[in-house]
Amino acid sequence: MDFSSKLLENAVNEVSRLPGIGKRTALRLVLHLLKQPKEHTSYLSNALLSLRNEVKTCEKCHNISDTVLCDICQNPKRNPEIVCVVEDIRDVMAIESTAQFQGLYHVLGGKISPIEGIGPQNLQIDSLVDKVSKGEIKELIFALSSTMEGDTTNFYIFKQIEKFGITTSTIARGIAVGDELEYADEVTLGRSILNRIPFENSLRN
Amino acid sequence: MDFSSKLLENAVNEVSRLPGIGKRTALRLVLHLLKQPKEHTSYLSNALLSLRNEVKTCEKCHNISDTVLCDICQNPKRNPEIVCVVEDIRDVMAIESTAQFQGLYHVLGGKISPIEGIGPQNLQIDSLVDKVSKGEIKELIFALSSTMEGDTTNFYIFKQIEKFGITTSTIARGIAVGDELEYADEVTLGRSILNRIPFENSLRN
Ligand SMILES: [Zn+2]
Ligand SMILES: [Zn+2]
Repeated sequence: MDFSSKLLENAVNEVSRLPGIGKRTALRLVLHLLKQPKEHTSYLSNALLSLRNEVKTCEKCHNISDTVLCDICQNPKRNPEIVCVVEDIRDVMAIESTAQFQGLYHVLGGKISPIEGIGPQNLQIDSLVDKVSKGEIKELIFALSSTMEGDTTNFYIFKQIEKFGITTSTIARGIAVGDELEYADEVTLGRSILNRIPFENSLRN
Repeated sequence: MDFSSKLLENAVNEVSRLPGIGKRTALRLVLHLLKQPKEHTSYLSNALLSLRNEVKTCEKCHNISDTVLCDICQNPKRNPEIVCVVEDIRDVMAIESTAQFQGLYHVLGGKISPIEGIGPQNLQIDSLVDKVSKGEIKELIFALSSTMEGDTTNFYIFKQIEKFGITTSTIARGIAVGDELEYADEVTLGRSILNRIPFENSLRN
């Protein structure tokens, strides 16, 4: 692309570093900002900077939070003995929207993926095993995507905590195998939590 | 969406105000930034702010520019007597990439569209008529999209400048009618400039 302005070129380059945003889309977005009042760009820039610089990770569940402990972990009505293991915040949001789950979460921050160079040490697995070993958790619900990486991660964690003898379950696979959890509709996802099955049973299928 | 963080919610809301970006895409983009080093978000925010606050509009052609006169208008090798009328900077970029045009541009800033509430007074039409009336221009090439709005705009301008008796042409319609100029391939677009026809002729089709 032949830019008549370095400022424009720079903005397009930065925007197009975002995943799934090509140069042409970036140019369209940036030209839109130029047509809007300056405040629009200030709000956007400030919102991104504030988020990146101020957001915290909940000490307990590792979910994205504005406070040291997130709202869910702080809620006395939630049952801390039932913990749902998920990949990231989008899965927490998806499950919360079903209003079917009253326990806490444990956000791994991804799943084991040798291809992407993500091993167990890159995820919040040790801290989960630690919680289990201290007897804080009675039931662990695996709610990872039903992909090969999700299954591998489930199995890896299961092997680490097996000896502590707690109840483990996986959400019912009403969700099509291979589908990402976050795209499931609320009813299916809510039902799959209610119909969860012992983890050992899921290995037999 | 149920956000666990106000900072996150705010960032997602701001990003999703961009055209064509839904909440889900905004969340994906924002979570991507959270996984990147903080500098990435700083660069992005600063690039957008600098562009919005510092960019100029070329005094002569109204193209986006870092300087009072853009590089094209400043270039002594370009012929200022041949002026190509376009909607916006993307069209300038598209035509420049063909390397077929050695005149200057006049960027209207859009096209007449009653549905979108854009009238002649919202576009850089008076300044174009002014240039023509002063005898600065010998040939005007209309290179607007071949849509109804583009044709309306061409015709409106043509009526205003007809009396000055300069040569007018439109780029050859090698580009499919209804297609946006900026998506044309370089060869087709370059050829359509070389094969431009007198504007009056285009009215007969
Ligand atoms: Zn928490
Ligand atoms: Zn200029």
